[in-house]
Amino acid sequence: MTGTAPLDFDRLFARSAPAGRTLGTARRGTYDFAVAYPDPTSIPLDELIDGLREALAEEGEDLALYAHAQGYAPLREFVANKLARDRGIYVTADDIILGDGSGQPIHMIAEVLLDPGDTVVVEDFVYSGTLSTFRRFQADLRGVACDNEGMLPDALEAVVRQAINDGKPPKLIYTVPTFQNPQGWTMSLERRKALVMLAQKYGVPILEDDCYVDLRYDGNDVPSIYSLDGTGHVLYVASFSKIIAPGMRLGYMTAPRPMLERALAVKSGGAVNTFAAFAVHRYATGQLHSHIEEIVDIQREKRDAMLEAMEEHFGEQATWSQPQGGLYLWVKLPPGADVVAARDKILATDDVGYLPGTNFAADGVSGRNIMRLCFGYCTPEQIREGIAALARGLRREGVLAEAGG
Amino acid sequence: MTGTAPLDFDRLFARSAPAGRTLGTARRGTYDFAVAYPDPTSIPLDELIDGLREALAEEGEDLALYAHAQGYAPLREFVANKLARDRGIYVTADDIILGDGSGQPIHMIAEVLLDPGDTVVVEDFVYSGTLSTFRRFQADLRGVACDNEGMLPDALEAVVRQAINDGKPPKLIYTVPTFQNPQGWTMSLERRKALVMLAQKYGVPILEDDCYVDLRYDGNDVPSIYSLDGTGHVLYVASFSKIIAPGMRLGYMTAPRPMLERALAVKSGGAVNTFAAFAVHRYATGQLHSHIEEIVDIQREKRDAMLEAMEEHFGEQATWSQPQGGLYLWVKLPPGADVVAARDKILATDDVGYLPGTNFAADGVSGRNIMRLCFGYCTPEQIREGIAALARGLRREGVLAEAGG
Repeated sequence: MTGTAPLDFDRLFARSAPAGRTLGTARRGTYDFAVAYPDPTSIPLDELIDGLREALAEEGEDLALYAHAQGYAPLREFVANKLARDRGIYVTADDIILGDGSGQPIHMIAEVLLDPGDTVVVEDFVYSGTLSTFRRFQADLRGVACDNEGMLPDALEAVVRQAINDGKPPKLIYTVPTFQNPQGWTMSLERRKALVMLAQKYGVPILEDDCYVDLRYDGNDVPSIYSLDGTGHVLYVASFSKIIAPGMRLGYMTAPRPMLERALAVKSGGAVNTFAAFAVHRYATGQLHSHIEEIVDIQREKRDAMLEAMEEHFGEQATWSQPQGGLYLWVKLPPGADVVAARDKILATDDVGYLPGTNFAADGVSGRNIMRLCFGYCTPEQIREGIAALARGLRREGVLAEAGG
Repeated sequence: MTGTAPLDFDRLFARSAPAGRTLGTARRGTYDFAVAYPDPTSIPLDELIDGLREALAEEGEDLALYAHAQGYAPLREFVANKLARDRGIYVTADDIILGDGSGQPIHMIAEVLLDPGDTVVVEDFVYSGTLSTFRRFQADLRGVACDNEGMLPDALEAVVRQAINDGKPPKLIYTVPTFQNPQGWTMSLERRKALVMLAQKYGVPILEDDCYVDLRYDGNDVPSIYSLDGTGHVLYVASFSKIIAPGMRLGYMTAPRPMLERALAVKSGGAVNTFAAFAVHRYATGQLHSHIEEIVDIQREKRDAMLEAMEEHFGEQATWSQPQGGLYLWVKLPPGADVVAARDKILATDDVGYLPGTNFAADGVSGRNIMRLCFGYCTPEQIREGIAALARGLRREGVLAEAGG
């Protein structure tokens, strides 16, 4: 078979296929403030094994089955109970689809709603993974300006009306309303009510991404957007990634039945991992509530450590969010500062990882002077060292002026 | 908010979205010959827990990380070594993407290759899950007639040429060459070579689905199609589902880099479950080889039990495959017999599950007189009882004539 030319795949790819993704692993910093990892030392490893052992003794032979694509029913039951207790969402286990994290449900929702060019309304800066998914389906992303209570209602309505005037009424409004990623604010109750009324008025579904809601360090819970709507306008996703571990790859969605049925039809890979679902179900049923209390204390200390270190090392050269929960600070440097260009250098030289604001920008270009810093993974001591190293690196690279200069 | 109408999602779904999928669980029979479940009693539950415990002690904190989307690197390394040893496929861990079963990689490949209406060439009866995926992307499926050595070369070339003449050259040739699902044959070496030459001649990639290759009860291994090509025309998928358990949701693909990069870009849900990958990696490294020997003996006995029971209860009223491996018999009843109509009744009355041939038909309609019977899940005793019950049920329903009648 010598002489045959290699197959030219570029000739074969679908018109709708996105560009390729780089293979192999990216470098991480010791001071890894880049990705939203939770605390590694408090993952309940022994308890997950105990839960798994119990489940395997009871129903281990069911690993031989292909579970229904909605996923392990007892864990869906647990999720339904948790949603009722914590978020005022009253659904049954049959109204839940488990997915690989919340990313897969978001992917499924995007896939069933979006034709190329369809409008999706999002916060001006929001979770980059979801933006990537929307872009993969060639959405026309339209960002809405936010203040410390969430999307500005007038700005939101103007964006929706503009899209309608353009002949492309929005297919979806996506929001991370609680401890917003990356901006850190929590949408106020009034804004949530206004958002629901706007969605109802214009007939646009809302996708509420509530991944961080359990990680509250101060203040009081705000009702879910879902609970403020009684008309099937809200799709809801959340995850065990931030309260147990991302490596468990377990998230979920609930939504009106027509949406669930369509979403299930595009889910790839069948049911979520039963092995992991066994462990998380047994563990969560007995111990998740107290575990959340424990990690909230751990993460509060880390947040405070990062806030103090920012004050010490950045002082008046930057402003940053004061989040009541979640895993990030959103740090704005003076206009003209450029954290995009310095990122690789600072990772290589100072061993500090961060993500630039542009990663989270609906327009893909704003936010060159903004950084998202995740405080979830490192120890408080590492956070103090890492923020100091970051400030040094930014000054060395000329992104920040010398302190006191 | 009373008075607001429920949101009409049907107005919002993408033109490309498939129809919805039913929520809730389907009934299974006690004599479940319907789905390709492996043996439930030989799943190495204790060994998987031991492996998991070892992995968590060594690197449990890494559950806090979002793994690279290709999946847990040591398991990819194991897969690369297994492919070299068993299938003559020499690739690195970076050439592997782990997926949720092999179904997710197949979904990814379909997604990056297929625009609506694109031609995919398949065996005339082949794995229904893959057909569903191709149909979800609105493929034009064209079946190729097979004998006991696989696709008939002349028929295959005629189908390819017809597609080219129709202005729709095939995007893909999909095959399950070893212990074909559902037909049971294994493609001969000569046919594999002919297939590779045809793929090269017409510039069409082959998707080789090798999910059953480890389950050989008689006869000798046949080289992988991948190993017969040196020109990047073959994409390869396989899985741990049949040799460990489907509930572990771990399969994999390898392919030329351009295809891997595109496939990774459409993978939903991030990396496969790290928790399950930890367990499978540690277990498989030490014990998979001997475990396969053990389950081959178990499944051989089940195959033989089903073959004997078929002889006893169906005799000359049917013909069936004599598979050297895999998990199925492919049972043809006389022309005019209709196992589709009788299926629900036999499940309800006789507690026997099977799948009709139509589920596996490229044309979606052929095979009303054919059943696929999986012998993997039930005990030999249950197989004997179940085949007797199936024969009784088919006779009662008038699908088969009374024995001796």
